[in-house]
Amino acid sequence: MLTIGIDLGGTNIKGGLVHDTKGLLHTFSISTEAEKGKDHVIDRVAMAIRMAERKADGEIFGVGIGSPGVISLDRTTVSNPPNFPGWIQENLAEKLNQKTGLNCFVDNDANLMALGSSRFGAGKAFDSFIMVTLGTGVGGGIIFQRKLFRGATGGAAELGHVIVDSDGPNSNSPTKGGIEAYLGQRFMSALAWAEIKKRPDNPLYKQFAKNPAALEPVHLVNEADIGNALATELLRKSGEKLGIALVNYIHVLDIRKILVSGGVSRAGDYILRPARETAMKRLLEPYRYDFEIIYESLGNDAALLGAGCLPLEHQNI
Amino acid sequence: MLTIGIDLGGTNIKGGLVHDTKGLLHTFSISTEAEKGKDHVIDRVAMAIRMAERKADGEIFGVGIGSPGVISLDRTTVSNPPNFPGWIQENLAEKLNQKTGLNCFVDNDANLMALGSSRFGAGKAFDSFIMVTLGTGVGGGIIFQRKLFRGATGGAAELGHVIVDSDGPNSNSPTKGGIEAYLGQRFMSALAWAEIKKRPDNPLYKQFAKNPAALEPVHLVNEADIGNALATELLRKSGEKLGIALVNYIHVLDIRKILVSGGVSRAGDYILRPARETAMKRLLEPYRYDFEIIYESLGNDAALLGAGCLPLEHQNI
Repeated sequence: MLTIGIDLGGTNIKGGLVHDTKGLLHTFSISTEAEKGKDHVIDRVAMAIRMAERKADGEIFGVGIGSPGVISLDRTTVSNPPNFPGWIQENLAEKLNQKTGLNCFVDNDANLMALGSSRFGAGKAFDSFIMVTLGTGVGGGIIFQRKLFRGATGGAAELGHVIVDSDGPNSNSPTKGGIEAYLGQRFMSALAWAEIKKRPDNPLYKQFAKNPAALEPVHLVNEADIGNALATELLRKSGEKLGIALVNYIHVLDIRKILVSGGVSRAGDYILRPARETAMKRLLEPYRYDFEIIYESLGNDAALLGAGCLPLEHQNI
Repeated sequence: MLTIGIDLGGTNIKGGLVHDTKGLLHTFSISTEAEKGKDHVIDRVAMAIRMAERKADGEIFGVGIGSPGVISLDRTTVSNPPNFPGWIQENLAEKLNQKTGLNCFVDNDANLMALGSSRFGAGKAFDSFIMVTLGTGVGGGIIFQRKLFRGATGGAAELGHVIVDSDGPNSNSPTKGGIEAYLGQRFMSALAWAEIKKRPDNPLYKQFAKNPAALEPVHLVNEADIGNALATELLRKSGEKLGIALVNYIHVLDIRKILVSGGVSRAGDYILRPARETAMKRLLEPYRYDFEIIYESLGNDAALLGAGCLPLEHQNI
């Protein structure tokens, strides 16, 4: 069965032709041109859909679109996507259906990462799991009994905004002390710099004193790799906070398989080992059994694959 | 339709005959005699079931039992109930079925409170809600689309062990800084006393200096009622922590109707208003819409009613 997956970003629209068992058959990218306004962007997405359709040697079952912004429970309408000037609220699915004649559905990136992983990645092994995406921000998706758990209005799994310290630092949200404030790329870097600047003897200080804003989690990983104990310590602290957040997810959901993906997750065991150790200490005893953190290696393909799975999931296929 | 609800406690076994629309028709209580061992307790529960059955003027559809301990996903087996000597693991549902000839199901108290509220209490108004029970401990139950959300293995909604401060105080669990450590009756009292003892001029100090262990949340409420500002402040602090926990539940589940019950919830607005204010400040903006905290006034009847509903819920009735 063939579907089309679209990843609508502020800069580029990525597209893919997806086969339900073979995965991504063909991918491409065009510019979004968000500055030209909403109607133009919708035309660009319709164009991307037609580009993918042209590569298909059979009927297209439907189209899934990963989009920023708030998505309605019925997976049609996108409200207030950041970095899309003039876009308040739009029934994107209906508009695209009119333009392409194909059945279209919309969801957010982290949900689609979870769905893609569930059907093509590490998530295939589990009926239920929690996907945590560690990137610029921290996002999440919940797969429960092989379907996305969407909550009452479609907004479940805002996992980056689960609080681990009520008086903790700010992130991009009113949720002070949320896990994103510790692990979101920019916030993690800022917290790390606050420590590094106390240690002018450290190589990290010397490297970034002139431009602390250039510090990224990957630099901590590189330094940890060559034995910089401060770098290891800073990554460990972030990992411990992640462990606290995992305890919260698990005590609410009783889903004990955690999949992680996204740029920061490439810090691997520097973050995931302390996360695991902290969670194993803090989880109620029966919840430790079967608890596991797994790295999802599909990378960004997971979101495109997940978008392609969305029309199937919607029909319980 | 008639069912039987049983609430198995360490001291008493409460029983009720439940009608699916009229509610509790008849209730009673017998002693548990837990010290005489597991088999004796199971005989007592079977006796309670027969006592309820004798009051029925029609067929009994099934029996629901609220039990402490860890309950299996299939609602049959109870492991390690605290305060039940000699009880490791037992298929309680099967044993009772053999003894009574009735279809029996087991669940935990907080889940049954949620189910009872959903069918007979304040929860009737909502398809999905989160029940938070504020008693000796803090427990929870999640109703999602009119059914209990049980997670992957039946252990969802351990809401008292959701962490609000990673370095917070201990409760009865390894989950340091969980909301139970702030709002569980004994922990809340101990935290309050730590502040009261710094204020020897306060009436609460004078009242409890000789026996701080006698201090209970209800005393704070009584003092707040007559204008004791310290008491109001202590209740407010606990309420703010509850607000943080609610943010965590809502960001994971996207279920925005919160029902509270249990002894400590009688502190009412002293706790619930700061909880609401804190949550409204910390929730992501779209999640504030429709957010509501509602007091469940069914009291302990909710658990017995919920037990009676369990056989129906199991059959999707």
